Amino acid sequence: MASQRFEPASGTRDFLADDLRVRNHVFDVIRGVFERYGFEPLQTPAFERIETLTGKYGDEGDKLIFKILRRGEHEASGEADLALRYDMTVPLARVVAAYGSQLPAPYKRYAMGPVWRADRPGKGRFREFAQCDVDVVGSASPLADAEVVSAVATALDALGVSDFRVLVNSRRALSGLLEVYGVPAEVGGGVLITLDKLDKLSPEAVARELIDVRQLEAATAERLVADVVADDSVDRMRASLKDSEEGRAGLTEIDRLVTLAGPSVGTERITFTPSLVRGLDYYTGVIFEVVAAGMPGSIASGGRYDHLISALGGPDVPACGGSLGVERIIGLMESGAAAVKSLDVAIAAMAEESDTSVMEFANQLRGIGLRTEIYLGASRKLARQLKWAADRRARFALIYGEREQESGTVTVRDMESGEQHAVPAGELAARLQGWCAAPR
Amino acid sequence: MASQRFEPASGTRDFLADDLRVRNHVFDVIRGVFERYGFEPLQTPAFERIETLTGKYGDEGDKLIFKILRRGEHEASGEADLALRYDMTVPLARVVAAYGSQLPAPYKRYAMGPVWRADRPGKGRFREFAQCDVDVVGSASPLADAEVVSAVATALDALGVSDFRVLVNSRRALSGLLEVYGVPAEVGGGVLITLDKLDKLSPEAVARELIDVRQLEAATAERLVADVVADDSVDRMRASLKDSEEGRAGLTEIDRLVTLAGPSVGTERITFTPSLVRGLDYYTGVIFEVVAAGMPGSIASGGRYDHLISALGGPDVPACGGSLGVERIIGLMESGAAAVKSLDVAIAAMAEESDTSVMEFANQLRGIGLRTEIYLGASRKLARQLKWAADRRARFALIYGEREQESGTVTVRDMESGEQHAVPAGELAARLQGWCAAPR
Repeated sequence: MASQRFEPASGTRDFLADDLRVRNHVFDVIRGVFERYGFEPLQTPAFERIETLTGKYGDEGDKLIFKILRRGEHEASGEADLALRYDMTVPLARVVAAYGSQLPAPYKRYAMGPVWRADRPGKGRFREFAQCDVDVVGSASPLADAEVVSAVATALDALGVSDFRVLVNSRRALSGLLEVYGVPAEVGGGVLITLDKLDKLSPEAVARELIDVRQLEAATAERLVADVVADDSVDRMRASLKDSEEGRAGLTEIDRLVTLAGPSVGTERITFTPSLVRGLDYYTGVIFEVVAAGMPGSIASGGRYDHLISALGGPDVPACGGSLGVERIIGLMESGAAAVKSLDVAIAAMAEESDTSVMEFANQLRGIGLRTEIYLGASRKLARQLKWAADRRARFALIYGEREQESGTVTVRDMESGEQHAVPAGELAARLQGWCAAPR
Repeated sequence: MASQRFEPASGTRDFLADDLRVRNHVFDVIRGVFERYGFEPLQTPAFERIETLTGKYGDEGDKLIFKILRRGEHEASGEADLALRYDMTVPLARVVAAYGSQLPAPYKRYAMGPVWRADRPGKGRFREFAQCDVDVVGSASPLADAEVVSAVATALDALGVSDFRVLVNSRRALSGLLEVYGVPAEVGGGVLITLDKLDKLSPEAVARELIDVRQLEAATAERLVADVVADDSVDRMRASLKDSEEGRAGLTEIDRLVTLAGPSVGTERITFTPSLVRGLDYYTGVIFEVVAAGMPGSIASGGRYDHLISALGGPDVPACGGSLGVERIIGLMESGAAAVKSLDVAIAAMAEESDTSVMEFANQLRGIGLRTEIYLGASRKLARQLKWAADRRARFALIYGEREQESGTVTVRDMESGEQHAVPAGELAARLQGWCAAPR
């Protein structure tokens, strides 16, 4: 690897061709799906005025914001006036506030691109990483929630990541649950944060935290945890929640989402999951998480967050959305899914006198869409140039030396078999088009 | 427009759907052309370690670099340790130094993306703007220069910007010219900077500056300017340069580039232009600029810069490249070239009972690639929903009310003509596929 001096800054990555093509493929596929759903693309600047970002992500979040020093005479002040985008949601709130009536109502938008967080870099954790969000701002309809879940699931299918399950719950069902179990309102948020650890900690450890940290009575804590993780937890929840108005409302919205999104997601892949909590306290309605076979954590998540846009500085409008964990998904793809793009044709450049013809051949082949390169090195030796063609993983090499010039042909070499054909120069493009169209 | 509080930071822009689609279209077309030429994509991080950038762009450039404040306990120092990318060339030099033998030789790469400069914002001048570079690192071959010029011209053609001319000169021809006119070597660079103003100032003003600022003798200055701008300047130059070895070498490389790139660029669109200087002093060989009819300045430019990569911290390798003025090109496109993408089908949601069917119709239509939206508003009134369909510029609207449910049909309304058809639900996808395929 490179000497440290030439490495990218800590927590960032250079993407060379093979990796970048995989990334771009993932973004292109997602874009195609979201466009079919009628979501509109949005791109906001890499940086915002600092006051747009600070105070929106909590104290811990604020510390992770990259701040940009003032410039010119103000640089010496050591103050910052701008900051790098930390997520896609605060810029969305700003855009909704800024363009209001110019936007379609509701505003269905997707945003894909890098965000920056000054986290400690680690395995799979970067300071520059891509986010991919899809949101509906301005609709309270259950159809909007279903559209988001359906779009996310369709994108995963289109990417070939099909062995997943969509877990669904509702913030209102969780509130109802707390009510039914007699959890005081003031500790409810904390109890949910603790319950959210059930995917990492044992039920016993979670119950212990509910008792020690959240001050629940031992019997309540143990019964709550047992009910949430039981094999028949769905039945238990349905029975419990019937006693709470909020709980019944939660069940209704869960059922509605599963019914509406079921056919497109696949009914066997979407399920009410009482243990799903999602720590973030801005959710107000249905919540979901997508888990993939054999992977810890989730590859997508989201829900309804009816007051978040106003909390972030925008107008008070209902909204829901989802986020695809694109970096994790790209990680899944790299194990072979997207084909490395190699060269169709490598053209040898045998002598200065024939360079014009060589450019001409390249023009013709590029004109019919073939990925074509000309040898640009110093050597005029054929063996050296064929080695280059092999290094470039070219499918065919063209040789146009003295013999070929005399006979008006071009030698086409199949780089895999080593077979060579003398093709009349005038038929070159047509012949190569046919050969390159054949499966490799 | 928005209150200032919600505007993007000074010198940056929000791209809403229509503008963003034009931008993405331009990038996609350019990417397609560069890939056919065998250039490989490269993406480097938005920020670099500050020492990678400072001192590379001259004093004026250094002032325009956005610097990122250190974090945590170091924030109070007011010092910066990172800085936003200022161009694509310094990161290229770092990548060539870092990955050396892992890269193809020569390394043909393209890079497209935002760069950031703390320039005073103004009409058409932004603090966040896209650059699009194509370079060949590690080849001294004239074929490499020709490939760059050809790729740039092909990209412009592919974008429909075809009324352009490629102006060609050579840094060695210009050196020869200075030699022939007896300009002392130590003022040569300054003289070229002054000559570069011939596209903005009158010949008299340029001659005046050569005398007053560059200290040339009046006769030399006037003769030099007259020769460079004369109608028969090409003939004059060819005659003058014959007396200089450097000048002859320059003529040879100009002729070679015009010969090699001529067929793909179009011989009538590429010409030796003695008045072309290109101010940047890192060029060492051929230089080029692309000018478009009716536009001041250039829309692309480049040349050979054999020692720049090492000056920027990379190895000492020959290199050449070009840059497309994508922001200017996008500006040309916005006047109508790329079509605004509108909706194929807008589906009304008439009643809760039929929402599941409505989702089902949407799935089917998206499955065959049609851009489809469901009404997500609160109203169940048809008139309100048809107004929404019109606002969304939908081509067809689907209505599935009580009457349709009873007869097993869906009403398809042509939003332009207002004509309506009752289509059996089972034939919906096939019928709409046919109708949407017809030209609008």
